[in-house]
Formats: sequence, structure tokens, C-alpha cells
Amino acid sequence: MSLQETLQWRFATKSYNGKTVENEKVDQILEAIRMSPSSSGLQPFKVLVITNQELKKKLYPYSWEQKQILQASHLLVFAAWDEYTPERVNTFFEFSNKERNLPSSATDDYRLKLLGILEKRSKDQHFVGAAHQAYLALGFGLLAAADLKVDATPLEGFDSEAYDEILNLREQGLKSTVLLALGYRDTENDWLVNLKKVRRSNEELFIEIH
Amino acid sequence: MSLQETLQWRFATKSYNGKTVENEKVDQILEAIRMSPSSSGLQPFKVLVITNQELKKKLYPYSWEQKQILQASHLLVFAAWDEYTPERVNTFFEFSNKERNLPSSATDDYRLKLLGILEKRSKDQHFVGAAHQAYLALGFGLLAAADLKVDATPLEGFDSEAYDEILNLREQGLKSTVLLALGYRDTENDWLVNLKKVRRSNEELFIEIH
Repeated sequence: MSLQETLQWRFATKSYNGKTVENEKVDQILEAIRMSPSSSGLQPFKVLVITNQELKKKLYPYSWEQKQILQASHLLVFAAWDEYTPERVNTFFEFSNKERNLPSSATDDYRLKLLGILEKRSKDQHFVGAAHQAYLALGFGLLAAADLKVDATPLEGFDSEAYDEILNLREQGLKSTVLLALGYRDTENDWLVNLKKVRRSNEELFIEIH
Repeated sequence: MSLQETLQWRFATKSYNGKTVENEKVDQILEAIRMSPSSSGLQPFKVLVITNQELKKKLYPYSWEQKQILQASHLLVFAAWDEYTPERVNTFFEFSNKERNLPSSATDDYRLKLLGILEKRSKDQHFVGAAHQAYLALGFGLLAAADLKVDATPLEGFDSEAYDEILNLREQGLKSTVLLALGYRDTENDWLVNLKKVRRSNEELFIEIH
């Protein structure tokens, strides 16, 4: 399937048929999320991969009762760092330099400049920046799923504080940011699948300056 | 090229060779951005597509003097809505219903609920939400570029207020959010291209709950 066909094929699935997504496909979707770029390479988030039905039932009432939570084969919760602490930043650069067989001081100029910038920002701004990276990775996950003909729904309608509580995210310095349901569409019961896909025109969305 | 190969091939290009990206490929990258999903379908951003070298020179000093700004064939500026005004929201639903041959009242329950939620949020929160959608679309643009073997750099290091001023974004109710440079890698002069790609392990990034 060409990229353009893939883009037309995917849609925010409203109803799943209960079929489990094969592990091999889930692994490839997770790999796309893992390989997504992030600011300074920090990957400031974790992704919870939930198949446990009891847990999904607990989350459901805090998810605007969207039935994809219960029906999806896999529910991914993107949980972004609540803060770019110096420890988190330093640990990453140590890891990265080791991976590249560089001395741990190799990135010191960059690292110290970054820490200086982060120090001037509020904890709220840190989370906003981390959440951006999670959304970028969500984009990679969504396109990877479509490429594999796995259906998906990006979901923002949930009570993030309740999610943080239920999933013990706070003590890990994480905040739930956005969800991605994975599964297979239930064509007969999905109210959106046959509606025309609506997007703004090129003329409206893009401003060309040549 | 398989998706996994594409993910390995792409990297945040640091040096471009000056070759212009073919219009046909740019169009496909823009189409991926246009087809990216967004919260409630609103697509709350515009994308400036800049090839004008004089303008790039004006932006360069406000871009941490990152040379990709000057070298890239195309510089995309994602500019998100500063606010979800009722007018913007209502105009979208009118457009969407017309596209689907539905009466303009078809989405009233949803639209009014959405307006009620937005009304409770600050203008800053509106922009944060709009920026999320821009980052998601950035993910689509990045993967589409890699799929076409077009090199790309996502860039956050710029002075958004200066960009807003130079690009007259404020009067359009927009704020520059993130950049995407497009072009072809200059393999000989790119310090990053031959360094090992560093990513967190599956064990570190994912938390599986079965």
C-alpha cells in the first residue's frame, strides 16, 4: 500500500471487533514509537502497553466512557516526564555517550547549555515540552499502525489525574498525556468508517513563501 | 524500503547539500501533514512552506544560527492557533458537515460540549492543545519524508516571538511552534550521520501490563 493509500485508509476507529493484534505487529508499532526522534534525543516519556481487561475497566469511567478503551486489543498510554530534572538529563547523556563509545565529557558543552535553558523554565513548561515529544511519537505510532493495516484511535478525552493515580505515574515522575488504542475495526458498527474523511484544503492549510 | 529500514535511515540531518527537493515529493510530504489526524478534526494550525532565501536569512539569527535554516531546500514552520475561538470551532463544523452532506446542526451536541470544555480553559491551554496537534502532524511529515528518502530535521531551537513577528503570525492568531527542514543530506559534512543512532531500550521505554 502506498503512503497516500495508507493515509486514506486510516481513521480514528470508533468501534473495534475484539480481535487481538498480533504480537509481531504490536512490536513493529512500538519500534516506530521507540525510533521516533525527540528533542536532544532524550525520549522524555514512557509508554504503558495495556492489555489487561480489568485495568481497562478501571480506566473506562475516566475515559469519557469511550468504548474503544474496553474494545481495543492494546491500549497505549503515553506518559511524559513531569520535569526534565538534571539527573534525568545527565543520565541520558551518559548512556548516549557510552552507546557511541565517546568519553562521558564529549557532550558537556551541549549538555550544560541545555541544563541552563531548562533551569530557566518552570516545571509546567518542562511537561509541555515533554508532551510535545510524546505527540510526535504518537504520530510515528499511528502511521506505523496504518502501514501494518492495524486500526488505531488517538484519544485525548480522559481524566489524566485519575489515570496518573490508577497507573501510579506520579511516583515515577510521569503524567499521562495521550492515548492510542490499537485493534481491528468493526466495520458494521463504526459510525465514522463510512463518512467522508474531512480535511482542510491545501490552500487553507499551507502558506507558500517562494 | 520497509518501515523498519525507513526508521533506521532517517536522522536529524545536520548538514544539507543544497539540492532542491522535487515539488512532487514536497507535495507528498505536505499531503501526509494534511491527512494527519487532529483532536476533533480541527487541524488547529497552518504550515508555512518557505523556500525564499532572503526570508530564511532573516530567520537564521533567530534560529540559534543553525545552518540547516539556510541550507535546507524547504523550511516548514508549524504555526498553531493561539486560541480555539468559538468562531474557529463553528466555522470548522460548518465546513465539515457541508463536506459530508449533513445538516449544519448534525454535530451540535458534540460542538456545544466541545465549546463548553474550551471555554473553561485559558488561552495558554488552548495554544498547548493546538501545539500538540502540530507535533502529531510533524511526526506524519517526518515519516513521509523518510519514506520518500528526503532528509529532514525537526527543529525546536528558535525564537518563536521573533518568528511570529517576521512572519506576521500574530495578526493571524497563530504562534510558531516547531520547524521542519527538508533537503538532502551532505554526508561528508554532517557530523551526526555516521554516529550510532541512540534510543532507549524496549525495557526502559515500555511498561507492559498484561
